[in-house]
Formats: sequence, C-alpha cells, structure tokens
Amino acid sequence: MMIVMQSDATQEQISAVVSRVEANGLKVHLSRGAERTVIGIVGDIRVVQPDQFNHMPGIAQITPISRPYKLASREFISEDTHFTINGLPVGGSSVVVVAGPCSVEDRTQLLETAHAVREAGGHALRGGAFKPRTSPYAFQGLGEYGLELLAEAREQTGLSIVTEVMSVDQIPVVMQYADVMQIGARNMQNYSLLHAVGESQYPVLLKRGMSATIQELLMAAEYVLSHGNRRVMLCERGIRTFETATRNTTDINAVPVLKSLTHLPVILDPSHSTGHWAYVTAIARAGIAAGADGLIVEVHTHPEAAMSDGGQSLKPERFAELVRQVGAVAAAVNRELAPQPALPAGVPG
Amino acid sequence: MMIVMQSDATQEQISAVVSRVEANGLKVHLSRGAERTVIGIVGDIRVVQPDQFNHMPGIAQITPISRPYKLASREFISEDTHFTINGLPVGGSSVVVVAGPCSVEDRTQLLETAHAVREAGGHALRGGAFKPRTSPYAFQGLGEYGLELLAEAREQTGLSIVTEVMSVDQIPVVMQYADVMQIGARNMQNYSLLHAVGESQYPVLLKRGMSATIQELLMAAEYVLSHGNRRVMLCERGIRTFETATRNTTDINAVPVLKSLTHLPVILDPSHSTGHWAYVTAIARAGIAAGADGLIVEVHTHPEAAMSDGGQSLKPERFAELVRQVGAVAAAVNRELAPQPALPAGVPG
Amino acid sequence: MMIVMQSDATQEQISAVVSRVEANGLKVHLSRGAERTVIGIVGDIRVVQPDQFNHMPGIAQITPISRPYKLASREFISEDTHFTINGLPVGGSSVVVVAGPCSVEDRTQLLETAHAVREAGGHALRGGAFKPRTSPYAFQGLGEYGLELLAEAREQTGLSIVTEVMSVDQIPVVMQYADVMQIGARNMQNYSLLHAVGESQYPVLLKRGMSATIQELLMAAEYVLSHGNRRVMLCERGIRTFETATRNTTDINAVPVLKSLTHLPVILDPSHSTGHWAYVTAIARAGIAAGADGLIVEVHTHPEAAMSDGGQSLKPERFAELVRQVGAVAAAVNRELAPQPALPAGVPG
Amino acid sequence: MMIVMQSDATQEQISAVVSRVEANGLKVHLSRGAERTVIGIVGDIRVVQPDQFNHMPGIAQITPISRPYKLASREFISEDTHFTINGLPVGGSSVVVVAGPCSVEDRTQLLETAHAVREAGGHALRGGAFKPRTSPYAFQGLGEYGLELLAEAREQTGLSIVTEVMSVDQIPVVMQYADVMQIGARNMQNYSLLHAVGESQYPVLLKRGMSATIQELLMAAEYVLSHGNRRVMLCERGIRTFETATRNTTDINAVPVLKSLTHLPVILDPSHSTGHWAYVTAIARAGIAAGADGLIVEVHTHPEAAMSDGGQSLKPERFAELVRQVGAVAAAVNRELAPQPALPAGVPG
Repeated sequence: MMIVMQSDATQEQISAVVSRVEANGLKVHLSRGAERTVIGIVGDIRVVQPDQFNHMPGIAQITPISRPYKLASREFISEDTHFTINGLPVGGSSVVVVAGPCSVEDRTQLLETAHAVREAGGHALRGGAFKPRTSPYAFQGLGEYGLELLAEAREQTGLSIVTEVMSVDQIPVVMQYADVMQIGARNMQNYSLLHAVGESQYPVLLKRGMSATIQELLMAAEYVLSHGNRRVMLCERGIRTFETATRNTTDINAVPVLKSLTHLPVILDPSHSTGHWAYVTAIARAGIAAGADGLIVEVHTHPEAAMSDGGQSLKPERFAELVRQVGAVAAAVNRELAPQPALPAGVPG
Repeated sequence: MMIVMQSDATQEQISAVVSRVEANGLKVHLSRGAERTVIGIVGDIRVVQPDQFNHMPGIAQITPISRPYKLASREFISEDTHFTINGLPVGGSSVVVVAGPCSVEDRTQLLETAHAVREAGGHALRGGAFKPRTSPYAFQGLGEYGLELLAEAREQTGLSIVTEVMSVDQIPVVMQYADVMQIGARNMQNYSLLHAVGESQYPVLLKRGMSATIQELLMAAEYVLSHGNRRVMLCERGIRTFETATRNTTDINAVPVLKSLTHLPVILDPSHSTGHWAYVTAIARAGIAAGADGLIVEVHTHPEAAMSDGGQSLKPERFAELVRQVGAVAAAVNRELAPQPALPAGVPG
Repeated sequence: MMIVMQSDATQEQISAVVSRVEANGLKVHLSRGAERTVIGIVGDIRVVQPDQFNHMPGIAQITPISRPYKLASREFISEDTHFTINGLPVGGSSVVVVAGPCSVEDRTQLLETAHAVREAGGHALRGGAFKPRTSPYAFQGLGEYGLELLAEAREQTGLSIVTEVMSVDQIPVVMQYADVMQIGARNMQNYSLLHAVGESQYPVLLKRGMSATIQELLMAAEYVLSHGNRRVMLCERGIRTFETATRNTTDINAVPVLKSLTHLPVILDPSHSTGHWAYVTAIARAGIAAGADGLIVEVHTHPEAAMSDGGQSLKPERFAELVRQVGAVAAAVNRELAPQPALPAGVPG
Repeated sequence: MMIVMQSDATQEQISAVVSRVEANGLKVHLSRGAERTVIGIVGDIRVVQPDQFNHMPGIAQITPISRPYKLASREFISEDTHFTINGLPVGGSSVVVVAGPCSVEDRTQLLETAHAVREAGGHALRGGAFKPRTSPYAFQGLGEYGLELLAEAREQTGLSIVTEVMSVDQIPVVMQYADVMQIGARNMQNYSLLHAVGESQYPVLLKRGMSATIQELLMAAEYVLSHGNRRVMLCERGIRTFETATRNTTDINAVPVLKSLTHLPVILDPSHSTGHWAYVTAIARAGIAAGADGLIVEVHTHPEAAMSDGGQSLKPERFAELVRQVGAVAAAVNRELAPQPALPAGVPG
C-alpha cells in the first residue's frame, strides 16, 4: 500500500501515519518528493485496511498495491489450470461448447434439445431446474424433476450436465444429478453459497455478476478456491452498461485480461451477453478468437415457445452452424474443438 | 405489449404474429401506419413472454407496456405505506435516521456507538453480525454473538435493531434478536432469500443492487410483498458507474422516481453511496431535500480502527451535526425528524 | 508517480526503470517490500508520461500521484472563487437561479418566458440560439436572430443572458449579445472551443460531458483557466448510466466532491439531469442541500409546444414554486437566494 | 409513436391526446386493452416531438417507433456500402488494416513507422497532427508540419493517410494532405464539425463517442450523409463502463449490431478499446471474427518513448504478428486481407 500525503501535510501528520502503520507491525519507506511525501508500506498488507487511514489528516490518496486474491492469480500458479469432467477436458488447448435450453421445461423438449446439441457437436448440456427470475410471477423451474430429466438426457447422449444452484440447500440434490454447478450472475457475491460450493469440491462454473469488476470475479473465485476446490471455470456473460441495443455488453476485453491475470479456464456466454439470437454466433466466434476456452450457448428446439429467454436461444440448425464456424476460428488460433464424449453404452450413434 | 412490424413485413408475417397472440388467448388491435403496422396486445400480458416473438420474421421492435410489478405499484396502492417498528413510525410525514457501525466488532465498540447514536438523535441502530465481504480473508462478522450485543444495545438505548441477513438459514436467529432484516445490495436478486424473508412477515430493509435498475428493485420488493409481507423499506445505496471519485454514485433521482412509482418508504444510505465520510452529510441533506423518508448512516466511535468501512463512517460528533442539519432541511420541506423512541424502563436519560 | 514492480521482477528490470526515470531528469526513491519493489518518482511528473513505462518488463502497476490540473485545484487557490456578472454575484454565499427555455423559438415565447422567470424570482435567463441536436432533421436554433431576442429580453427584465456557443466562429457574435457563454456537455472536450473561450476572457458555464469524470471536467476547466480566464462555472447536468427510468443520472456526489477539489462555483442542471419535469423540483432542492452555488432550469410557458426538451421544462407557476422551495432549503443550509438584478431604467416593476 | 395511457386515464385525457396528435396532421389508431388504452400515431413521426406529450395528464409511457435515422439505415439501403480510397477497397469482402502512431512526432519516427506498417502488411497509415489532449499542458501535435510528414510517408510507401480533424477551420488543410478525415470520439457530437465534414465530400472515419449509444453513432453518421457524403466508415473504439481493468470496454456486440442496422463499413480500434498493447492482438482477432470490415491500430517503433498513448502501441514486430493472425481469422470467416496498395513509382519494393 502507498499513502500519498497532501502537498501541505505537516511533519506531525506524516509521523502520525507512520506510527499507525508501525502499530500494525509493518515497516514504512518514506519518499519525500518535490511536491509530496509518499509513505510506502512494506509487508503483508492484508493485515491492514486502507480504510483505517481515511480519517487521518494530511492524506491525499491511498493506493493498494498487492492484489487481494492469491490462489486465483497467475503469480501464484503460472500454468493454465486444466481438468476433466467425465472425461471432457476443460482448460487445455481444446475448446468446449456447452449448450442447451435456458430452463428445463418438459421431457420432450429437453431430450430433443439434448440430442440436437449432441448431433451439432456440443460437449455438455446446460439447462436450468432452479431458475432465478426477476418476477415472482414467472416460471421458477421444475426443481428436482428437472434434474432427473437432465440426468436422463446424459444417459442418452453422454453429455455432461451443467445446471444452476441458487441456494445452499439445493447443493446436495444438484450434486446427485449434475456434473457442474453453475453460480449465476446474480449470486456471484452470495458468499454463503460460494462457501458451500467451495466445500462441495464439485466442479463450478462461476458467472460474472452483471456489474462485477474482473477483480471481483476473481475474488469470488478465491472464495471457492480457498476451500481447496480447484475445478473452477470463470464465465463472462456480459456486463451492464448504458447501451440498450443489446441486453448486456459483452466485455470481450475480459477474455485476454482474465487469461493474463488468472490460470483458470474462461468461458464466454454469448447468449446472455447479447440477449438476441441474431448476434450470438458472431460473438461466439469473437470469444474464441479472443482466447476463450469455451462457450455456453442457449439452444432450444422451439425458441418461440420457450418459457424463458427464447429470444436469445438458437434453433438447433443455427447452433450446428455456430459449432462449425467456431471450429474454423479455433483452428485459426491454433486450437481445436474438444472431442465429443463417447456415446453411452447401448446407445446407437 | 406492442409489436412493431418492419416496414417491409409481409401480410403473412403479420398474420403469423396475430395468430400466435391469439393462441395465448389474447386479443389484438391492428394499427396500420404509413410506414409500419403495429400490433397491440390486449389482456394480461403476464401470460405471454415478449421473447416468444423474437424469432418471428418481420418484427422490428417489441415493447412491453404494463408494469411487471403490481403490489409495489402506486397504481395498485395509491396511499403511502406507513407502519411502525417498536413504535417508531416509518413512511409517514416524519423522517427516521438509522445509524451505527458497519460491523459489530466488540461489546465496548457497539455499546459506545449505540449510546452515541441515541444521544445524537438517531432512531434505530444498524450493525452487521453477518458480513458479506469481497475477500474470503476479511473479517466475516461475529455471528450470533454480534446479534446478542445488538439486543443488549437495544435494551440500553431503546433503539430498534437493523441487521443484515445473508442466507435463508440465518433468518430464524436474526428474527430472534433484531427488529428489521436488511437484504444487502449483493443479495437483492437472491430470490431464495427474498422468498424466505417474505414468508417471515418480518420488517425488511431492501437495498438496491449496485447495478439494479429501479424497476428491478421494485420487482425484488414484489417478491417480498407477494408473500403478504407489507413492511418493506426500499434503500438507495448508490449505483456503479464509470465515476471513480466516489465509491458509488448516489442515484438521487431514484428518490423522487420511487416516490412516484411506489407507495413504499424510501431510505437513503449516504455512507455507501459516497464511500467517504467527508461527503456523507452533504448527501444526507440532499436525500431528505429530495423527499426520502429516512437515512441509514455508518457511525463509529473510532472509525480509523474499524474492521470494515471505516473510511465512510462518521465520528459521533460529526453524526450529531448531520442529524442537526438534516433536521433543518426536513423542516424546509415540511417534514420533521421522528420522535426518538422512549428510553427503556430503568435506564436513566 | 509510483511504479510497482512485479513480485518476480529482476534486478535488471528494476534498474532499467530507474535509468529511464533518471533520463527524464527526475530522481527515484526505491522501496523494497516483502513482496514487491516500488519505485517512487520525485519531481514534476508532468514531464513524464506514465505510458512510457508500459512496455518495460517487470512492471505490475503504474500510479500517477500529482493531480493533472493545477489552476482549478483547491490546493492552488484555497478560497472560493466568486465574481459578478452584470452585478449578479456568483460563487459566494448566495445562490443563483438561471432559467429559461431550451431553445429560443420566437419573440413572444421568449419575452413571455423571460418575464415569467423574472417574476418567479430568477436571476438570469438561459435560451439556446445555436442548438446541438442529435438529429440533422431537428430544429437547429434561430442563430443570430435568437441572440437579438435574448438581448431584448435582457433590456426588458434586467436578467443576464446565458447561451450556448457550439463552435469557435460563433464566439464573436455570442459575445456581442450574451453575458455568459455556455459550453455544452457534448463539447466539454472540444479543445479548440475551450481554447478560444479561454482566450475570450468571457464568463463561461462549462457543462460536464455526459460520461466525463469529475477529473476530466476539471481538466476542461483548466484549459479555459490556462488562458487567464478565471470566470468559470462548472455545471453538473447528469451522467449516463445503465438506469433508464430517467434521462440521465444526477451525480449529486459531484457537488460536494467538486466543492472539495476546486474553488470554482458549481451549478446544477436538474432539468437535463432528470429529463422529466416531475422530478426537477425535488432534484433542485437536493442540489442546493448538497452545497451547489446555483441552478440552471428549463422553463417554458407552453412546454407541450416546445420545439425541444419540452418534457423536462417547467411551466412558470411550477418554476415559481421551485424558487420558493429552493429558497427554503437554501436557508436551511445557511445560504440565501441572491438578490434579483435591478430592473432596467424605465421598466415598470 | 405509441402513447400508452395510465390505467386510470379518463376519457377526457385520452381525447386530449388524440386531439393534439390530430392537430399535427396525423391520424391515430386507438387500442383499448383490459388495463390500458394505447394510442398509435400514424404518419411521419418526425413531424412531432415525443416531448410534446410529456405534460399531458394521464399518459404512462411514450414509445417512438420509427428509427430517427434514414440514410444510414439498412432499411433504406440494403446492400453493404463499399468504396475505394486511392484504390484501397473499403467495405467489401476484404479487410483493411490502418496503423501508425498516435501522434506524428518527428520525421524519423513517422517514416520508420510508415515503412514498418507497410512491411508488416498494413493498408493505410494513421497519425495525428492535431491532437485532442485531456490536459492543456500535454503535447498538442505538430499541426501542418505533421500533415506534410504524413504526405511524405505516403509518397514513400503508397499508404493512404488517415488523420484527425478537430475543428472546422482545420478541414481545408487536412484535405490538402490526407485521404481520410477522422472525427475523434470526443467530437462525435460536434455538430458544426459533422456538418462541415459532410459538406467536404471527403472520406470520413467517424469514431463512436465513449458513451454514445449505437443509435447516436448512426445519428452522427446521418449528419454527414445528409450532405450527400456517402464515404463514411464507423469506428467502434471502446465505451466507458465501470470496469477499470482496461482503459475502455470494447463493445464487440456493436460490430454485429451495426452490420445489421446499417450498410456502412465498420472498423474496430482495439488500441483505444483496450488501452494496453498486451490485449490489442486478441481483440483485433475478435473484431474480425465478429464481422468487422477493418482495424485501426496504434503502432510505434519506440512506444516507450511515444509522446502519447505509448502504452497501447504495438512495436512493429508485434504488429506484423497481429496482421498474420488477423489474416488467419479473416480466412476462417471467409474473408481475406485487402491487397496492399501498389508501391509508388520509383520506390523500390
């Protein structure tokens, strides 16, 4: 931490700041400039709060220096993290595509969509059984029955299951059926949930909050990692800005920034980050071109009848075209689509 | 809902949209303009999803018309909602001031601060026992022991207790000790929590998420109201913008906008909405001038030693000056500070 | 400026940074921490560009320290700047209210509005003769004829004239008729215009750009001040955020922040900062409560027929009520409305 | 335009709105719903101002329907606009790369950079002779001498020249030397400048303002187009958001959105949209993958010594790698880099 004194700070004010720093067991380095004195604080700054100094007279500016996250940082782990989910490699040289409906609505819809995702080249199936909805009057998901349908879809297609967990008490049942627990954007700073998911040791897809900074996303990941759960994927899903032409603004910069700051895999969700199916494929291509390790895409066999987010869902044939185009872009950046999972025994290819 | 067709939409495209609307059991009104045809949808639009139409060819724009919240709206309840908390009137002509430390840190700190709040003219005591913290390594609150200290402070000062509840499982213990449950900004769209708090029938202070729209805040309130819990206060606590001179941007416009859209009481939190003690009093005055029904302010007897948010906490003497100035502004807008609660029996004034 | 080295920076990398700093004729102070080395740069940092160092290996973070503006800063001039415009005091203990139509539309409209502003208690008249419009097809203002009408209104009412100047070539004609040149939000970083207005030595009302930071506003003021023109008023007129319930978000925090960083007078424009007449009076009160030195308000005798911004204009009777309420709030914060200018000789009061 | 009445609007209020619409010579279509009445306005809505109705009692919401731009729209011109600049094709199937220093600093720097851009595969040379700078104390550009150097660079390399014009009086001299006039982000709504550039009939690169909506960018283009100047390129250069990890947020969504709304070519500026050289190549790839028609990139032979924006400038060898990678991505989306311009006669290849 650096504390910059005002140009007219007195010697007493400077000494008072130095004393407080030393009272925390830390050392200072004083730098007296032509205009200002700067007090550098040496040691583990996690033991002091920058806020402590706000009330002291004579201070112009307080600047933290060390990053507040550790386990998530490239400085701590320089190699890319990669792991497998039911054999599907995540975070290495290959690119994964997770796809499926926003909500699990009924058996026919889900199984049809799952087969379509498999045939189009997808690697895992997404689908919400517990749905966070802005309105209390909107469809809230099928709950455990939705999870059962997802598990049935995995049996038929071999696709791993990614589904959202909204509260601590849902974790056991979600673990019983799914392969990856998704933390939704609205829960990125639900610390009770992050703790519990960290303890679960289950793979996590952590979505960035719609107005969370990249640093806050990494701090949320740090919560999960701090419990020893290392299988964390970060997901950029668009941020909230003044622009209203799209539902959110895809923060494509976040892809190379995250790849530089952290070793964790980065997934892009072009469906939520644009909010309109017509832009999904272009942004999916952009995400892979920017260096993302995968995509999560909304697909629905009948988007016009979807109970949620139909407007941003792709029909299966458009999704197949997305996979094809994304594969071409992946090759242009020296990557390739991951191999699809093996079909379950007894299922005809 | 209005569906605006593209200028070159065909008759078939128009008919297809009309058919889909009617399939939902609704009626349409067609308006054929010089440039475009507009399809008005008549009936309860909550039964259709605007998203349903995104995939239909020939559509230029879809505009919802009815507001998606009902119980929270002025159209539904035109009179201001007011209620009492342990005798303290909220939402009427008087103005309430809630104050206290960010976190309950220890017995001495809390009781000293509570007495200082009482002496300065405050009406209720805030203090966090369960703390949502960006970093997993930061102080997370004293938990139930913190709640016990808050209850002891109430016994000594007569101040009602406002404290945050972060997860469903904390609700019973918080209800045992506190008078108002605060939903923090990061949990404004934690729907599991909103449901449970709604069912609790306990008074709620609902903070706006840092990037939640005013409409989303009202939708979150609707979750609580839909369980029959009508004692809801809305709290503007600053939104996230590009400006970095302050921690957040106080959306002062939200005060008159909320007063116009809803009957619920509106509270301003100038401590979080500015992030720096030096600006808190000016913004507190502004909030009351704009029509807010109350304030929630961070006060700490030793802010420089606070374990969280010390930089935005007022010392007791500055808080007393805030109460004095806010009282003068309240009078200028034909309101007055609420009477302080009676001292508990046996406590010397 | 502080340069923070990465935790694994080599001694060669540190030495290279030090050499570059010294090559600029500046001195360094080295601070070696447990985790990182920090290089403090001593001297006038305006001679070095932080960008110079971005390419050097081993650097983690670069932090400027000195503020980039000088003449506008409280550190340079600690006393509030105040001056008079045709006898009207600006920036002292009293509060000024500028009001009038968005655009000068015709003689009747302008003169009626000017008299209404005068009668309601206003101090100066605003009105646009040159209008920046988003659409090339919208009304672009009456030009010099509009300025003539403004001058006629001054003759009849004694109100000083504030009007926008959009380009360098308009400056001479505007100076011929008006008392204060307004730089609009869209031109806040039109440096050619800022230079020319600075050289004019004419009073300036400088509006904050809709996404300009407070620091950028002060830098724009510095452009004007650097030509020796000290009569600059800063105007907060709302910033662009994600919230769409209002046209802009009033950055009420900017009022106390500006009063702390600069000695220049601060004016609030609640008409643009809300975009809807129904919220203007509440936000005008809030601005004065927060410490603003004045207001600029849109008033129109027939807002429903206005050629621009009618929706945010107040009718004269509502404006009179605004002045009354603002006067009460001003008194509550120990200020008062400025005295109205004397009526011109020969004009019956 | 659609006017939605409040649920409790009276018949008189509805009739009053209808009368006002008809007074503008337009027709209405009334749609009476279960909850509300909606008044559709038929005819050229550019003759009425939505603001006109804001003051009328009983109105809940006003929604414009027609787009406010025409010449820029795909509805008006469905085919992609393409044109050539000194033989360089813009806006067709090929992709162009404009590159060069932020500022023209001296003859050696510029000519070295120009040759490096040519050798790396660039198509045109950018470089500022007139520089908009946040600080009045910063380097403001070489002016006409800078333009002379740019023209000399064109003679030596065959690269067309793109340079910024900041004010109307600079247009003639810029036209004398350059091939494309750039309107900078800060001047996107400098309407005097847009008019004059429109009248010049000179090719224009129009940068999006840092907080301009996509619609406002198209309205700014409409200003230029309305003077018959059709050679307009739109440039996404990042928008201002809450995220501070990068200088701006690349609005990658804007690429497919613009390609859908307008026929004009779309260029991406990854240097300004990220603000750091380390992210430029990844975002350049993303831009082409998303469908952009070209790039404008900052390149400097000695970025660490650049007088402006050195931190986001690429060294020539990194730029050459960018061109190579962008070429691979272009091929993956069925496009190719434009052929480089012929070398001037007498210049050895």
